[in-house]
Amino acid sequence: MGEKMPHWLEKQAVLNGGELALESPTFGQLSYLELRDKAKRFAQQLSILGIKAGDHVGIYTNKRIDFIIAIHALSYLKAVAILLNTRLTAEEIDYQLIDADANFLLVEPGEQAIFEKLALPKVITFDEVHQSPQANRSLQLEIDLDDLYTIIYTSGTTGHPKGVMHTYGNHWWSAISSMLNLGLDQQDKWLATLPLFHVGGFSLLMKNVIYGMPIYLLDRFDPSSVNQAIIDKGVTIVSVVAVMLDRLIEQLGDRRYPSKFRGMLLGGGPASAHLLQKATSSDIPVFQTYGMTETASQIVTLSPKDAMKKIGSAGKALFSAQVMIQQDDQVAVPSVIGEIFVKGPMVTKGYYKRASSKQTDWLATGDLGYLDEAGFLYVVDRRNDLIISGGENIYPAEIENVLLSMDGIIEAGVVGKEDPKWGKVPVAFIVVNKNFKLEEIKQKCTDVLAKYKVPKAFYVVDHLPRNASNKLVRHKLVEQLK
Amino acid sequence: MGEKMPHWLEKQAVLNGGELALESPTFGQLSYLELRDKAKRFAQQLSILGIKAGDHVGIYTNKRIDFIIAIHALSYLKAVAILLNTRLTAEEIDYQLIDADANFLLVEPGEQAIFEKLALPKVITFDEVHQSPQANRSLQLEIDLDDLYTIIYTSGTTGHPKGVMHTYGNHWWSAISSMLNLGLDQQDKWLATLPLFHVGGFSLLMKNVIYGMPIYLLDRFDPSSVNQAIIDKGVTIVSVVAVMLDRLIEQLGDRRYPSKFRGMLLGGGPASAHLLQKATSSDIPVFQTYGMTETASQIVTLSPKDAMKKIGSAGKALFSAQVMIQQDDQVAVPSVIGEIFVKGPMVTKGYYKRASSKQTDWLATGDLGYLDEAGFLYVVDRRNDLIISGGENIYPAEIENVLLSMDGIIEAGVVGKEDPKWGKVPVAFIVVNKNFKLEEIKQKCTDVLAKYKVPKAFYVVDHLPRNASNKLVRHKLVEQLK
Repeated sequence: MGEKMPHWLEKQAVLNGGELALESPTFGQLSYLELRDKAKRFAQQLSILGIKAGDHVGIYTNKRIDFIIAIHALSYLKAVAILLNTRLTAEEIDYQLIDADANFLLVEPGEQAIFEKLALPKVITFDEVHQSPQANRSLQLEIDLDDLYTIIYTSGTTGHPKGVMHTYGNHWWSAISSMLNLGLDQQDKWLATLPLFHVGGFSLLMKNVIYGMPIYLLDRFDPSSVNQAIIDKGVTIVSVVAVMLDRLIEQLGDRRYPSKFRGMLLGGGPASAHLLQKATSSDIPVFQTYGMTETASQIVTLSPKDAMKKIGSAGKALFSAQVMIQQDDQVAVPSVIGEIFVKGPMVTKGYYKRASSKQTDWLATGDLGYLDEAGFLYVVDRRNDLIISGGENIYPAEIENVLLSMDGIIEAGVVGKEDPKWGKVPVAFIVVNKNFKLEEIKQKCTDVLAKYKVPKAFYVVDHLPRNASNKLVRHKLVEQLK
Repeated sequence: MGEKMPHWLEKQAVLNGGELALESPTFGQLSYLELRDKAKRFAQQLSILGIKAGDHVGIYTNKRIDFIIAIHALSYLKAVAILLNTRLTAEEIDYQLIDADANFLLVEPGEQAIFEKLALPKVITFDEVHQSPQANRSLQLEIDLDDLYTIIYTSGTTGHPKGVMHTYGNHWWSAISSMLNLGLDQQDKWLATLPLFHVGGFSLLMKNVIYGMPIYLLDRFDPSSVNQAIIDKGVTIVSVVAVMLDRLIEQLGDRRYPSKFRGMLLGGGPASAHLLQKATSSDIPVFQTYGMTETASQIVTLSPKDAMKKIGSAGKALFSAQVMIQQDDQVAVPSVIGEIFVKGPMVTKGYYKRASSKQTDWLATGDLGYLDEAGFLYVVDRRNDLIISGGENIYPAEIENVLLSMDGIIEAGVVGKEDPKWGKVPVAFIVVNKNFKLEEIKQKCTDVLAKYKVPKAFYVVDHLPRNASNKLVRHKLVEQLK
């Protein structure tokens, strides 16, 4: 049994009832009192439809207001939310629903047909819930931090997805640790454009009810709307991944953000030096972060005071967290690249129905990186994406960064191709513009990269495979090679 | 076993090593790295002198830097700190040391003689420690929130003192909950003039290492120095009790605090409406708080946005906490006065060596108050100080507030005197100035107070009995009556 505290949304309704909680061009503004009332009404309607404490309830919707009300309603019922990625195929979703033992599934009207072939879960549309009468049961008004709240399947840039379990405590510690890094200003307003079914977006909904800080929601990423929200709507922080930041800078042009804008929280993988340089040139503070579903979002983050000084680093482990680099089962000294291990109360206790293989509290991330002398983390690449060529380690991200700094290239993905002589050799998939000249690119690579790092082939493509978080999915490039 | 996290000071040395941690006219400035190094050195010296994990170590000093280094050093050793009130008599201290099973006691040179008659604890002067060689033992670099950290004896405005046990978690949750109320700005600097051996002062040392926020320390309260620190030294928040606030306003005169000053955190008992009105007239935001040793300082606090709107209220329960008013064993409806109950992860698990009499997680505070319709707490008085006169409840603080609003009176304390007819009748102890005219005072009381509330006697005294926190100790007035 963990620490207990008042239900988060319920408490905000008491502390900041009339204050703005959510704002969106789609559904307008909601105060904490309004959000609380909608969530409790929805909870009583779900109760009539048979959902009770301990149930596993899938949420499959792109309507953000439905998603938000559903996750708070489920917390009032003490049910577990299975957050489903709406970009997945029906087959992929079925796998997750079965694996997560979901006994209910909430979907938008018209989408229930996709799931009809499944015996379980029972499929309910949001309209059915909204039109249902309400029960009058007593709701959970106190939260136990050790209780399971969400299951999110790893976005699966590689391998078979596993259900990451998050307790209320994991989400709590994530929000609190971020606050200790960024501070908390009464003027803060955070913009969410990331999918809410991923932990990066979901974590903003937790900050919303834990901090009492309003969230500005956009249904999809659009550079012009985001820039307008920063310039005109009082948004002070935006969560982005690298491609979004790039497009925001392009769209911003010569304009500048207002002084109350605090910065971009940049996640979803290492950013290129080129991109970070562009952000600096546009006077945009970037708080680079490192995290994953298993850590309930960021666990290592660059602090505001270091944002302009340590460009390229993901920062230091958040206050309640620790980071360690391990090489050959030994703690690595500064500057030596090894696997990144993390630890802290925001880290998941494990995967649903998978026996824990953990020997310690340290989570092996599968990512490669190093710490500098001052303890700043530099994330190098995914360990699985490492290309070993003639005994040399090649980090795809390094080559991609070089390619992305060139004029004719818009996007780049590098993977290893089987080679009889070297084992693997690097090859590049690129999205190009009209300035692209292959010979120039090859020459520039030869100029700046060691010979074994120069891509042995360039494949010009229309777009690169990305997941719902816009992260590059390199193993799909490997499949294209075959 | 609770949540684990990095040792707080150690972590700040990593995150904000070169930043200012402590500032004082007495000992100058210390960065987090310097404070960390001093605390670890002191820990290794204590280790040589025999202090180890689990030891109970009394700290008896008015030298703030010694106090601060000692409490962090003890945390590195996983020893328990017994925080001793230096204003107590040797006899009172002896009682606490014996009750707390202290096996070591740290004192300033020249003061060890006071404690020589005790068989235990072993008395060590700070000089002996500073001159000792260092051990080289491994220190506690990870904190378990469930571990006991401090024992503080209740300041004892009534009854026999009991040792309130605080875990690291109690202090952690107190700091975090306060941050969720006040926010956290990178410019924040908090002034400590309260004694550090009381929980109100001690809690600032915890915020210091948890937030990474500098603390400005004054050895004693002096209105001119405090006002100067706010005006010239960048202090943004000051913890005060009512008498201090009054003197600060007097000393400030027509001047105003700079705009970056956020407000006064006012604790130590209900403040008079007169005083709060004076603060408002001087444009000083006051965050009135309610708390006690058992709640690891504030547990109910007025938020910045309500500070000027709900003057007189102690605010709402902090985010992780709850407050309830109980009358005749029932939850009271709004506006009804009853005993204040509180709950939350900052509340002590109990008193040292006293079997818990708690039936629930709710702590009965012994204070009287009510909630308004919007959930704001108004603290009325100590239940033990309640005067029942002819069946009517009389709250001494109400009468004191009336007296304090009068021109000739500087301080006032009201208690009940035995009366054969009414059971008890109110009598007043007052400190007066040259404008004092007894007949006018009596007339004014008759004008504004119900007849049974008008003090039946006025005793003019030089000063009122106050404890180390400057709180009025009414039971000493009752003793004076006898």
